[in-house]
Amino acid sequence: MTKKRQLGSCVTFFPQPTTLVATVDGEGKADLMTASWAGIVSKTPPTMAVSLHHNRLTYANICATKSFSVNLVPAHLAVQADYCGITSGRSADKVATSGLTLTPATLIEAPLVEESPLNVECRFVREVELGEYRLVMGEIVEIHALEEAFAKYPQGDARVFDPLVYLGGIREYWGLGEKSADAYRDGKRLLENEAD
Amino acid sequence: MTKKRQLGSCVTFFPQPTTLVATVDGEGKADLMTASWAGIVSKTPPTMAVSLHHNRLTYANICATKSFSVNLVPAHLAVQADYCGITSGRSADKVATSGLTLTPATLIEAPLVEESPLNVECRFVREVELGEYRLVMGEIVEIHALEEAFAKYPQGDARVFDPLVYLGGIREYWGLGEKSADAYRDGKRLLENEAD
Repeated sequence: MTKKRQLGSCVTFFPQPTTLVATVDGEGKADLMTASWAGIVSKTPPTMAVSLHHNRLTYANICATKSFSVNLVPAHLAVQADYCGITSGRSADKVATSGLTLTPATLIEAPLVEESPLNVECRFVREVELGEYRLVMGEIVEIHALEEAFAKYPQGDARVFDPLVYLGGIREYWGLGEKSADAYRDGKRLLENEAD
Repeated sequence: MTKKRQLGSCVTFFPQPTTLVATVDGEGKADLMTASWAGIVSKTPPTMAVSLHHNRLTYANICATKSFSVNLVPAHLAVQADYCGITSGRSADKVATSGLTLTPATLIEAPLVEESPLNVECRFVREVELGEYRLVMGEIVEIHALEEAFAKYPQGDARVFDPLVYLGGIREYWGLGEKSADAYRDGKRLLENEAD
């Protein structure tokens, strides 16, 4: 039996995506927030969810303009992403300070992050109150992916996207290493072991 | 301006965690399911969410016994995890075929995966219906982490956990490479760039 340590009730789990959530307020002022509690939650229709503290300016912006974009952070922008996580758009212009570029979305009011290799446009559909947090759900209405990622691989080249992985409990950002397996394929090897 | 390709409305986003969700039915029969739409959604109280198709045996088991465990998959178990994602517990004994070991949890009825370096015990609290999917939320009541991960680093050693990263749209499993930055620290370098 492997020795394990009980950590009690806490929030350690990983790996998670590092994302920049871009929003805009009712006057058109944009903001960025780093979020790692983000992911796909339905395919019918395509839906993303992001969990954030109810005090966040990003939450106020989503309530005001009913849209947000989720932008994948590439590994070389780890410092910029960390900065956009530790400061508030209420006290600083995070877009100017980080040097990141915002560009208009096609179907929503919130902007996209130009430097991100994968931008997801979401239209707010519902939220769930979870203590001090709000799980905000948005229907995915459009996705933009770096064209050069498809040059060699029709499904997209992970090394071109170069996603930054966040390890929540450990509080570290990591890059990808090597491919371990192909999904929906390599597991089929075990099918022959199934009992009749 | 970087050239991007519009993918329309679909579910491509990554990186995501590769997890095994362990459950048990009303008669005590256990099952495993691979899930990558999983993550933390609140700290007040600590809560995890997993999204799954409503036809899944795992969903029926959670409804029956009101608990589930989320088990981090280490990179060396990529093939076993992929197998537990492509077959149903209704037609095969996935625990036996995968060779994985289940062990009792401390506070919930659902078991834990012994080979996983990080096990999260969750007590079902609520669900959200999202088309054909159910976003199942569970309060985190206990976490078990591999003791050896704390030998050199008090906060935990990412290389010992060796989490398997899933890239959803691309359908590939990857391991971690190198650390890019420390969170809540390296971003502070940009604070001096903030305008007064």
